[in-house]
Amino acid sequence: MFSNTPPGSEIFKYDKPFAFHRGGSLPSLQLAYEQFGKANADNSNIVLLFTGLSPTAHATASTADPSPGWWEQVIGVGRAIDTNHWNVICINSLGSCKGSTGPASINPATGKAWRLDFPELAIEDIASSANLLLEHLGIDKVAAVVGPSMGGMTALAWLKQNPGRCQHFLAISTAAAAEPYAIAIRSMQREIICKDPNWQAGNYTEECWPQEGMRLARKIGMVSYRSAEEWRSRFGRDDQVRFPQTTWGMNYAIESYLQAAADRFVGQFDPASYIYLSRAMDWFDVTRDPSKLCHSVEVPGCQRIAEKLCEVKLASACIIGVNSDLLFPLHQQKELAEGLDTCATRVEFHQPNSLQGHDSFLVDFERFNPIIKQYFRNLD
Amino acid sequence: MFSNTPPGSEIFKYDKPFAFHRGGSLPSLQLAYEQFGKANADNSNIVLLFTGLSPTAHATASTADPSPGWWEQVIGVGRAIDTNHWNVICINSLGSCKGSTGPASINPATGKAWRLDFPELAIEDIASSANLLLEHLGIDKVAAVVGPSMGGMTALAWLKQNPGRCQHFLAISTAAAAEPYAIAIRSMQREIICKDPNWQAGNYTEECWPQEGMRLARKIGMVSYRSAEEWRSRFGRDDQVRFPQTTWGMNYAIESYLQAAADRFVGQFDPASYIYLSRAMDWFDVTRDPSKLCHSVEVPGCQRIAEKLCEVKLASACIIGVNSDLLFPLHQQKELAEGLDTCATRVEFHQPNSLQGHDSFLVDFERFNPIIKQYFRNLD
Repeated sequence: MFSNTPPGSEIFKYDKPFAFHRGGSLPSLQLAYEQFGKANADNSNIVLLFTGLSPTAHATASTADPSPGWWEQVIGVGRAIDTNHWNVICINSLGSCKGSTGPASINPATGKAWRLDFPELAIEDIASSANLLLEHLGIDKVAAVVGPSMGGMTALAWLKQNPGRCQHFLAISTAAAAEPYAIAIRSMQREIICKDPNWQAGNYTEECWPQEGMRLARKIGMVSYRSAEEWRSRFGRDDQVRFPQTTWGMNYAIESYLQAAADRFVGQFDPASYIYLSRAMDWFDVTRDPSKLCHSVEVPGCQRIAEKLCEVKLASACIIGVNSDLLFPLHQQKELAEGLDTCATRVEFHQPNSLQGHDSFLVDFERFNPIIKQYFRNLD
Repeated sequence: MFSNTPPGSEIFKYDKPFAFHRGGSLPSLQLAYEQFGKANADNSNIVLLFTGLSPTAHATASTADPSPGWWEQVIGVGRAIDTNHWNVICINSLGSCKGSTGPASINPATGKAWRLDFPELAIEDIASSANLLLEHLGIDKVAAVVGPSMGGMTALAWLKQNPGRCQHFLAISTAAAAEPYAIAIRSMQREIICKDPNWQAGNYTEECWPQEGMRLARKIGMVSYRSAEEWRSRFGRDDQVRFPQTTWGMNYAIESYLQAAADRFVGQFDPASYIYLSRAMDWFDVTRDPSKLCHSVEVPGCQRIAEKLCEVKLASACIIGVNSDLLFPLHQQKELAEGLDTCATRVEFHQPNSLQGHDSFLVDFERFNPIIKQYFRNLD
């Protein structure tokens, strides 16, 4: 139930061992992906899209799956990333549970789900597994790599691993390294899941799984994904009317909103996958070697980011972030832009005035789409 | 163990019934309080201090209890609130567990702790119970009322209940009503405590109590009490060294900091008291009647605040808030100052540039003390 592949996703099977950056390996793996648009004869119009923590590869509607994707308003014919021109390849991250191999997949050696026997996952593993798919598809270079949120971290890791293989980079509400505030939030989410009595050291079943832990983790997530300003104008001090009023139950609309949002999420995502991907984000630091923990280091500023990313040899980069983002704060977008600006020919930095916090790129299309559309138009 | 009175706190016992604003009553109650300084012959130098959610009445060292208080650097001889001049009375809130009657106190009818049989507690109850103590002490008017955080809400409720009985008001990092973001955080904290298997519908024991729930709730609290900027400069991406490194354990200094902070708190505060006080803050809206839930209302702006507080007839008010406060955001301090400015003779609004978020008033004395000292000097 936690592991499900969207009907339009294609499955790429890789039957050789895959080694992880922090040690350990898989005997084989598979990646779920979807393509939107059509590749040129010379593959010069490929856009590689990495996702945030939870989305599938189904970024937008397709013939194979006409249901709306998670970035439906951004990708499509005539949209900001125009599939009349670009061929977008979206990959479900290694470690996720939407068709790609992850902790919910079956370990062939045991016939049971990997769960906590899955190797330690780094963002760099998600990035390097994508290259197996590109090779399979006969793609050597991509025109652009796009990454919102965790996808931006994956894009940065991929760019660092593949100098000269990509010219353009669109980074949205992401970071070159996790900051302590984001680590604090994700660490609490993992702790809440693992403290659920049904967690059972990762040996939960489909009948008995850490449902309350996942629900609470998602609520904490929502508090970090949205913003106080949005909620003030949207909910005020309205009473909640969705759930029965009980003595110690929910009083306010903000509480029932969080409950409903968490209810929609739980049961849709494997708890072990969730904590693996969450930890991978904490570990990420584009300036460091992923095989080691960092000892007493500052969050990298733009100078160290530049040192690492100049070798990537980008022609252009577009960095978008919003001021109301608590999880990937605006100053991290600025540092990324300043770091890239020392080496890419053309770097744009945009801060749309969105109120919806980290999630703005998933909802505030009025502000995001013109920026994305203009950036891709200039790549032609 | 959850209910303990500081050695210097005096106990005022009130042996008549006390009715709560939302219904229900106590057959009797007691309040723990401490006095710092000496009352004038005409009681013209009384400063009434209400506390945040968790502090005791021991605000500063005294002869009876020479250990440092929670506001040691602010109150004392020659300090910002100079006890050579002022007589500060600090009250442990009704509903708390530091000497005042609350859910951890014994219900005389059953011989057991009240727990969830304690009446529904509103901030207005904390305020009106304080009047019983003032009457007992023979104090009719106070020179100033001071309230940081929840204490500011209590001070606002007290002022509204007692027009003409106080001339000056110092409000620190507080609000005229809870906003949805703060409600979201406190609601999750309560849910985490009540989802702990040891919660037992409030029937926990001293041997088996919701320790993990309290620890997690305190961690969420810390994330709302401090700020990302502070943690970035203080912890960066440092490894944690306080606890053993385990596979799914803590990696970073920010995580061990939260764990240590939570460890210091749990076992010191009664879980039922915690959720009662937390819910009282959500319910608070100085512009509304506490006996009813509010239906579909906006967070009050300065105009509605002014309408309610002009009848209080303050001579002056000093409002302090910091920009890094997530729980009681700066705009709420501004609205409070603007609301009071329409009716008080002299209103000061200060926004010290503190990085420590909501907790700044407990740690950033360098910035807070000059403001508080100047305000109290001008009252002479």
